[in-house]
Amino acid sequence: MKIQLALDRMTVEEAIEMTRQVEDYVDWVEVGTSLIKEFGTSSIRALKEAFPNKIIVADIKTIDNAKYEFQLCFEAGADLATVMGVAPPVTIETCLHMAAQYDKRVMVDLLNTNEEHIQQLRQYDAAIFCAHVSKDQQEIAGKQTSAHAGIRKSLSAEWAVAGGISLDSLDILAKLSPTVVIIGSAITKAANPKAAAKQIKEYILSIEERAHA
Amino acid sequence: MKIQLALDRMTVEEAIEMTRQVEDYVDWVEVGTSLIKEFGTSSIRALKEAFPNKIIVADIKTIDNAKYEFQLCFEAGADLATVMGVAPPVTIETCLHMAAQYDKRVMVDLLNTNEEHIQQLRQYDAAIFCAHVSKDQQEIAGKQTSAHAGIRKSLSAEWAVAGGISLDSLDILAKLSPTVVIIGSAITKAANPKAAAKQIKEYILSIEERAHA
Repeated sequence: MKIQLALDRMTVEEAIEMTRQVEDYVDWVEVGTSLIKEFGTSSIRALKEAFPNKIIVADIKTIDNAKYEFQLCFEAGADLATVMGVAPPVTIETCLHMAAQYDKRVMVDLLNTNEEHIQQLRQYDAAIFCAHVSKDQQEIAGKQTSAHAGIRKSLSAEWAVAGGISLDSLDILAKLSPTVVIIGSAITKAANPKAAAKQIKEYILSIEERAHA
Repeated sequence: MKIQLALDRMTVEEAIEMTRQVEDYVDWVEVGTSLIKEFGTSSIRALKEAFPNKIIVADIKTIDNAKYEFQLCFEAGADLATVMGVAPPVTIETCLHMAAQYDKRVMVDLLNTNEEHIQQLRQYDAAIFCAHVSKDQQEIAGKQTSAHAGIRKSLSAEWAVAGGISLDSLDILAKLSPTVVIIGSAITKAANPKAAAKQIKEYILSIEERAHA
């Protein structure tokens, strides 16, 4: 179970500084949608240059103009870029095509998809699927994991889980064995981000050790 | 019927130069999603500073993190910002709330919505709705207007129409009396953008005169 550090609502310089503090405890580094929209794709380039050995995820949330946007991400150094599951199928297919050309990966964000959507998306088995409780939904519902729980059974591909995940919710989520847990504010807003990341990493390792024991 | 000039897949400097060429013939100026994602929200600020008397539309295509993204747009000088119709309702509602706070407007992009979505969206009557054939859909289907035709009847609010619109398709669209026609490449990729914009503007004026005769 990998940890994807989600960097949002901060400057590019703060994102680099934050990643530097916690890099020993995270696997993938996500340039959040807010960084891309606020500062452009140069934010992706800056993170890849600062951390060339990390998998850089560009959370560009493409919903149209797939070729152009995915080219921007991959040329800027992203190893993986996101497309919305609610995008038209041609958009998702173009993203997969671009990723294949660049030998990179696609993450399909399942935000606001329903079971019918998810069934249609199963065909895209080269993609990583991301079960996602949105920031806005968290704000009304509070931190929750119930929305993640139904996903695993409907997708056989690699998958990620995102949205308000903290040490408290990890226990439930870990039972679902996602490939990636995406963690933002539980690390970036912690009083001590390094300690928080270390604690989460060690907790995941302990869960995995128990599972293999 | 207003003309919204969509600026996409170019630099901010090119966008300003393009707008300067055609400003006499367009009403609203859209900072395209590709400009925002490639260069950040400074693209919005640059266009508003260059054209303080134009309505500036930030096509940010929000699908989450609505408060933060809409604040970015409005603080940068946008008069109107876009949210996806396929976003969670709370996201759309947050956009409307932010717009009311700033005394600005919301455009709801109907890309990939179905009739059920559209019925649910009708309640947001402060918004402008945008019937949208996506760039990616245009690339497989060719320029088409059929996808726009069904929209007018289901929405009583102000509405816009976007996606591959040219002088050829204006005739059909004009009969549907949208509030705004969003035109990109038919102007920006024309050999002579100023002449193309003038021709489109005069054509719309002639249609409107005939309608009032």
